[in-house]
Amino acid sequence: MSRDPADLGLFDMAEAIRTEKLRSVDLVEACLERIARREHQVHAWTWLDPSAALASARQRDRQPPDGPLHGVPIAVKDIIDTVDMPTAYGSPIYRGKQPNWDASCVALARRAGAVILGKTVSTELAYFAPGPTANPRNLQHTPGGSSSGSAAAVADGMVPAGFGTQTAASVTRPASYCGVVGYKASHGGFNLAGIKPFAPSFDSLGTLTRQVVDAQWLRWALLGEHRSAESGVWAGKPRIGVCHTPWWDNADADCQQAIASAAQALAAAGATLADVTLPAHFDQLAAHHKTIMAYEAAQSLAFEYDRHHAQLSAQLRQLIDDGLAISRAQYVETQRLAVLARAEFAQWMQGWDALLAPSATGPAPLGLHATGDPLFSRIWTLLGVPSVTLPGASARNALPIGVQLIGKAGEDEQLLAIARWAEPFVRDLSAQQA
Amino acid sequence: MSRDPADLGLFDMAEAIRTEKLRSVDLVEACLERIARREHQVHAWTWLDPSAALASARQRDRQPPDGPLHGVPIAVKDIIDTVDMPTAYGSPIYRGKQPNWDASCVALARRAGAVILGKTVSTELAYFAPGPTANPRNLQHTPGGSSSGSAAAVADGMVPAGFGTQTAASVTRPASYCGVVGYKASHGGFNLAGIKPFAPSFDSLGTLTRQVVDAQWLRWALLGEHRSAESGVWAGKPRIGVCHTPWWDNADADCQQAIASAAQALAAAGATLADVTLPAHFDQLAAHHKTIMAYEAAQSLAFEYDRHHAQLSAQLRQLIDDGLAISRAQYVETQRLAVLARAEFAQWMQGWDALLAPSATGPAPLGLHATGDPLFSRIWTLLGVPSVTLPGASARNALPIGVQLIGKAGEDEQLLAIARWAEPFVRDLSAQQA
Repeated sequence: MSRDPADLGLFDMAEAIRTEKLRSVDLVEACLERIARREHQVHAWTWLDPSAALASARQRDRQPPDGPLHGVPIAVKDIIDTVDMPTAYGSPIYRGKQPNWDASCVALARRAGAVILGKTVSTELAYFAPGPTANPRNLQHTPGGSSSGSAAAVADGMVPAGFGTQTAASVTRPASYCGVVGYKASHGGFNLAGIKPFAPSFDSLGTLTRQVVDAQWLRWALLGEHRSAESGVWAGKPRIGVCHTPWWDNADADCQQAIASAAQALAAAGATLADVTLPAHFDQLAAHHKTIMAYEAAQSLAFEYDRHHAQLSAQLRQLIDDGLAISRAQYVETQRLAVLARAEFAQWMQGWDALLAPSATGPAPLGLHATGDPLFSRIWTLLGVPSVTLPGASARNALPIGVQLIGKAGEDEQLLAIARWAEPFVRDLSAQQA
Repeated sequence: MSRDPADLGLFDMAEAIRTEKLRSVDLVEACLERIARREHQVHAWTWLDPSAALASARQRDRQPPDGPLHGVPIAVKDIIDTVDMPTAYGSPIYRGKQPNWDASCVALARRAGAVILGKTVSTELAYFAPGPTANPRNLQHTPGGSSSGSAAAVADGMVPAGFGTQTAASVTRPASYCGVVGYKASHGGFNLAGIKPFAPSFDSLGTLTRQVVDAQWLRWALLGEHRSAESGVWAGKPRIGVCHTPWWDNADADCQQAIASAAQALAAAGATLADVTLPAHFDQLAAHHKTIMAYEAAQSLAFEYDRHHAQLSAQLRQLIDDGLAISRAQYVETQRLAVLARAEFAQWMQGWDALLAPSATGPAPLGLHATGDPLFSRIWTLLGVPSVTLPGASARNALPIGVQLIGKAGEDEQLLAIARWAEPFVRDLSAQQA
């Protein structure tokens, strides 16, 4: 029995099309079948037009497969503009609204040949108020947020890759909870034109995929880099600092065990590992992240706050109220500290190729009323560094737990190559635990 | 005979309303009368609905004047989204399109009480292809770009203040050509949500006003700072480096004379002045600016390039083609050099409060087919520093020539205070020349 094409990763799909083993329409049909079977439980999508997606696939099948994503279906988080699909930013304010353009990342994906399959659920304006999405690993649990729909759809085999965005933990956390690969780019690493701003000092594009090579392939396609998949594996054995972070006590036993197991597996695979301790004053960075995010969100969302106040959730109104109470002087001073911390971190990282750290406080919490705690990503998002969450570990309740690898600002290629090297060993944890 | 209210500056208008000497509707009527008289020659506006503007003014007049911009009319460059006015970004692609929100700066101005009078001409997508606007000082000459309409409208007394944006020289150059105050904020100084991105590493908000105090008042209103106008004057005598820049030979005789005269006037007023020379390798920064701008514009405008190619001007298509030919490695290396230059400039500026430098190569060129040379702003925009262009000097053909004061990154308040101090002495040049 042949494997269901919907279970292929993005890179494998692209290869299957390039080598004419599969057509785009086969892949899109397989994805649509999976969605038809599962969407009534997972609720990953805000917009999906099967006939339009199939028409796009057939059009790709009539063209020679020249782009690296030719015919490959991709999901787009509802915070990202698409010219042919409504974009509501997870808010009732914008329900049914149709942007006049594709965001840069969508246009570049299409240029590379991708079929945009549909739009996936975002929390309200990419903050905390959840959409309807359930975690496909256990429907009683949150998929995390804010990139809830992309993470759930990829985890459930509905689509091989989805765009997400992160201002606090919005790629890392759902990747960890749903058991997929979450790549959050360095701040400034991708063009954000057409993505609704929240806190511009932090807003970053990310991807949810099944494998690291898929994240690389998508990255290279967007950047117009012509590389072979083989070129993306770390040569040699990386030096990885195991970073418990100042918030280790907030990690539950499952999470702490996942880090320990991953460290052990990577050491056994030949990596140089040691526990590292961040500069003591970095324990302030999570709070600084909150300050800057609140101040900037209050400006980014001034229109929504003033004109659609009643349509904002209480928690988003609270964040904006918090932001309005922060003085310009406090914001400027906090930004100054963030800039200093970035420089200090770059120095401190000398001697290490990457860090291993918790992706979240534990597995996906029970219930769909909240999307979990962003604590373990605030510091890295503030530092503007890239992050790759790898699946493999599991909690005692059988839900996935990701571990994140952290790189140096702007050195996304190096981090992805290390993650690619580490991936099989971390993934193996599930086999050991099972 | 009482002065025409349309000739008041923004701060004076705000004061007149606060002290109940004038109503908002008086101001808006005066502006509309000026527009009715002149717009058929100046062509500063892309959208204006007099009855809607008057209705907004009357609504303000019914409210207690609590915000710092209460009832004051403001113009918004067509690159900036408005929820109740079409926004075409200076491009036929978006003619008549209606955004679903106000940009952050528009929402914050409205929160402070402003009446958005209408939308002003932008060059095509804020790049070089000009709109129909003429320079009100001589209709045969360009007003400069890309903030053409805001500069011309303010210069012509149609409105006391306009928003502009700058990625290369789009506030500084039109301010200089039209003889108004142009304030270009530090990169990151204002929230850009709802402003169409071009090159995110450089895109900055700016204002066109008649006086420096107007720029300060508008800035404080947007940032929610409660300050008195008196608090915004530099205490003491500033230390000002006279910076001919590596491109001095590109400045015409009028421009060189304007810098010499301004330096002399400021020295006579008590400032400490001396000629300064930038680090030699800074002569590369204008080229680096072009590289980064082209690379980023090619990503920001990927949708327009792929889907509306024929509706882009030849020069914008050329810029994007140039950007597509720049490798990721070259872009990353150029960004690295830009980051180093910013740090080096911050060190180099120690000992100086501001620099005095040309705003443009000379007065507004003849003809409306092009908007002039951005050369003298590329370096400062790349460095992310704030700039204030002051009017006062004149060319032999009687057209205005601005001179720009350059500050330190993030120190916009200090720069504006120095500009406020310098303003009367620079403005006095016209009296001496006349």
